[in-house]
Amino acid sequence: MRIAVVGAGALGLFYGALLQRGGNDVKFLLRRDYDAIVQGGLQVHSLDGDFHLPMVAGFRQAEEIGIVDLVVIGLKSWANDHYPELVGPLVGPATMILTLQNGLGNEQLLAELFGAHRVYGGVAYLCANRGEPGTVHHLGAGRIVLGALHPRNGVHATELAGLFTAAGVPCQAVDDIMKARWEKLVWNIPFNGLCAHLQRPVGELLASRKMTQLIREIMGEVITAANAQGLREPILPDYAQEMITFTLAMTGSYRPSMQLDRMEGRPLELEALLAKPLEAGRKQGVAMPLTAALYAFLELP
Amino acid sequence: MRIAVVGAGALGLFYGALLQRGGNDVKFLLRRDYDAIVQGGLQVHSLDGDFHLPMVAGFRQAEEIGIVDLVVIGLKSWANDHYPELVGPLVGPATMILTLQNGLGNEQLLAELFGAHRVYGGVAYLCANRGEPGTVHHLGAGRIVLGALHPRNGVHATELAGLFTAAGVPCQAVDDIMKARWEKLVWNIPFNGLCAHLQRPVGELLASRKMTQLIREIMGEVITAANAQGLREPILPDYAQEMITFTLAMTGSYRPSMQLDRMEGRPLELEALLAKPLEAGRKQGVAMPLTAALYAFLELP
Repeated sequence: MRIAVVGAGALGLFYGALLQRGGNDVKFLLRRDYDAIVQGGLQVHSLDGDFHLPMVAGFRQAEEIGIVDLVVIGLKSWANDHYPELVGPLVGPATMILTLQNGLGNEQLLAELFGAHRVYGGVAYLCANRGEPGTVHHLGAGRIVLGALHPRNGVHATELAGLFTAAGVPCQAVDDIMKARWEKLVWNIPFNGLCAHLQRPVGELLASRKMTQLIREIMGEVITAANAQGLREPILPDYAQEMITFTLAMTGSYRPSMQLDRMEGRPLELEALLAKPLEAGRKQGVAMPLTAALYAFLELP
Repeated sequence: MRIAVVGAGALGLFYGALLQRGGNDVKFLLRRDYDAIVQGGLQVHSLDGDFHLPMVAGFRQAEEIGIVDLVVIGLKSWANDHYPELVGPLVGPATMILTLQNGLGNEQLLAELFGAHRVYGGVAYLCANRGEPGTVHHLGAGRIVLGALHPRNGVHATELAGLFTAAGVPCQAVDDIMKARWEKLVWNIPFNGLCAHLQRPVGELLASRKMTQLIREIMGEVITAANAQGLREPILPDYAQEMITFTLAMTGSYRPSMQLDRMEGRPLELEALLAKPLEAGRKQGVAMPLTAALYAFLELP
């Protein structure tokens, strides 16, 4: 399958590398890593085994790639204004678009621009960080949950899941991608938010009994807001503890992407991860005071 | 009146200096500022006019001071374990003890040690910071609200208020010192807590609309907890806005004491300002999730 990876951060590089190793024709739209990857290929350090791809097709402009079968988007959501020039040239009549980005609003914007029928949303439970240019570190997990924005496209969602599974990525197709999005927010809001605000990795937060309780309460707010959105099935309250257990199994030194963004002075994904979920909660009359407090902290100049 | 000032931080030095200037026989129990004050006196930089007291009675041990009529306590509340040796030698049969410390629990501990009949609690609305040894900066406000722990001692509370008023400190005696304590907590918990956690002065917080809203919500939690404690009269909900207006009138660069404590690596008054109010709320079934979150942040090692 001809695949273009747009937004080659840790997530895009890691999944793109696996898809290429799995026999697909993968083209990477690159900025920071362009020179390193075109000259030296892509090095994956993974707890599942390191590997190196010597020949990687890197491009600076989407026009140079042209139309593909599948666009996989790993952009930071604050760059979504650039969808037209980054994604547009890749889209032909049969192209599918899968966004693996965080937060709310990505599928909807892609649907407005390119038509809902081709849009798929995926949620990645991946611990990975970029290393030196041309290098990605896979630190844990990696499962993807994906689904079609348009319910009739469930069969294609299953095919997409098969594509990832064949490449070695545990992947599950679900009927309700919005439920999967909110489930990911149950993790993202407290962990991305608090790790970024406090500049501490996940393990340091979970070492504090009070902080763990705060994380659990923020998760509770997100679950309540999620279940007010008319999901096909509710997120069960137990999901909070499940996510805490999942996080306890990670390396304690793991830094979520927003923590790294803050460390390195990049913009934060506040709109997709905090503003939109808060707005969605507010529209349904759900109070999210702890989430709002976290947003207030993160937004301070 | 023979007065001993125990805990000569910004608050103790400032009020002690005013009481001495007002004609009282004031003795200061000193540590950091001992040499500077004994040699060069005490310099007050005040927006009401600077003044210098060339002769100040400084002591290193309470035994050297002996029994006084009034002990004024400005210690950090985490030093309350030292009440016996710091306050004990100053107390004779007729001695009154006025604690101007922050938070909950100070009056009760003094009552256990020295008898409730001699204990008075005062709440100081003072913006002051210590400068170089022997120097105190009065940056704004200064009003004291005080009352007797034991209701029968109201007449003495009025006398104490007169003592401060005569020295130029606006001072009001109230029947219910616990209400005054909680009113001060309505300010202290959000402003001491958030300024210390975020390492920003009051003005930077109030420059953010979201942060101001968070401050208002934390104040709401404290007011609800206060009004569940059986105060003689409730704190009205408007009090939150009143405190925000009061703070907007301060110099925006004002750093509450807990912010300075954190900056300078000293212990924080978490027990008196956060743990005890949270416990008091919990005992009455009042949820204080934002206050608990703030405590969790401040307690992180």
